[in-house]
Amino acid sequence: MLISFEGIDGCGKTTQIMLLHERLQREKMPVDVLREPGGTELSEMIRGILLNSDIPMNPVTELLLFSAARSELVSTRVKPLLDQKVIVILDRFYDSTVAYQGFGRGSLPINEINKLNKIAAHGLEPDVTFFLDIGVDEALERQNGTGKGPDRIERAGGAFFERVRDGYHYMSEQNGRYHTIDANRPAEDIHHEIWLRVSGMIR
Amino acid sequence: MLISFEGIDGCGKTTQIMLLHERLQREKMPVDVLREPGGTELSEMIRGILLNSDIPMNPVTELLLFSAARSELVSTRVKPLLDQKVIVILDRFYDSTVAYQGFGRGSLPINEINKLNKIAAHGLEPDVTFFLDIGVDEALERQNGTGKGPDRIERAGGAFFERVRDGYHYMSEQNGRYHTIDANRPAEDIHHEIWLRVSGMIR
Repeated sequence: MLISFEGIDGCGKTTQIMLLHERLQREKMPVDVLREPGGTELSEMIRGILLNSDIPMNPVTELLLFSAARSELVSTRVKPLLDQKVIVILDRFYDSTVAYQGFGRGSLPINEINKLNKIAAHGLEPDVTFFLDIGVDEALERQNGTGKGPDRIERAGGAFFERVRDGYHYMSEQNGRYHTIDANRPAEDIHHEIWLRVSGMIR
Repeated sequence: MLISFEGIDGCGKTTQIMLLHERLQREKMPVDVLREPGGTELSEMIRGILLNSDIPMNPVTELLLFSAARSELVSTRVKPLLDQKVIVILDRFYDSTVAYQGFGRGSLPINEINKLNKIAAHGLEPDVTFFLDIGVDEALERQNGTGKGPDRIERAGGAFFERVRDGYHYMSEQNGRYHTIDANRPAEDIHHEIWLRVSGMIR
């Protein structure tokens, strides 16, 4: 089973992934969490290029590099784990590309991004995608509370995140695999809703 | 004007590009020669990953990395040069991907490679593509005469190059921009044929 988590930065993904990971481990289920880009030696090299903010980068180039890292993660990590019946939790997958590069930044038409994503994912699709939905103001407030300075993507500001959020809403209407969650609630309540869905799928 | 040179390794591209480059310079035409992958700081970093033979690489990942390097070369070098009315000669362009990764290695269906190429080239297409056609045996013989050891791609052997050559024949039938040249002739004769075509286009 392949589970992906999506949402704008500050939506609480990390906490929910940790809670679900721990819960599945307590249930003695084989489970692994992966995050892109990265996760393989090659992907780490690509990640190094992507995060090197000294290099000005064309948005199409950035998209192709993310896709290359994704292709490598899918072919060398995700697919072998799924073949071994391990539950794989992805902290972001190609929907993030649609939301951030497509809707947020407008690098490329959405249908072209979709074609590229299909190639990069080697045809793989999540069984369920948890979209943790939260208002942009709330999300920015949470991010500021982390004490970390904003990174290049975070600096792009509120209007950008509104477009990203619109993108997730669009995808949630288009894709039956989407499970949209109101993330303006206590973490334990959100976890309970996620666990109900996941436990129903593994039984 | 954008001119690309294509053909299997050992077909004599390098010599012909040099001859055309010199000829255009003698005619006082603004001209530049570019080679992919590489040509920009970012592309060189990607090239470093691609040529690092210690890292096993999924063929789809390789294709996406080549595409990323191409996207960067087109957006930061080729397009600005063309905008300044410089004649750009490309030592291989996306047709090489179709021939080598598509026909030669069978990494992906040709129509998917075409979609990817269109994205990576930002819609750019050569005005003319010189395909230097030569038999595989003749090409391998020429390569052995270079004194350089075979690289990873060359080691793939004769049957591979036959498929690559088939790919070029296929593209030459599909694309009006193709100018196929019998490359089993003296370099000066080949250059004369190329120059006739190019000089007709720039007048």
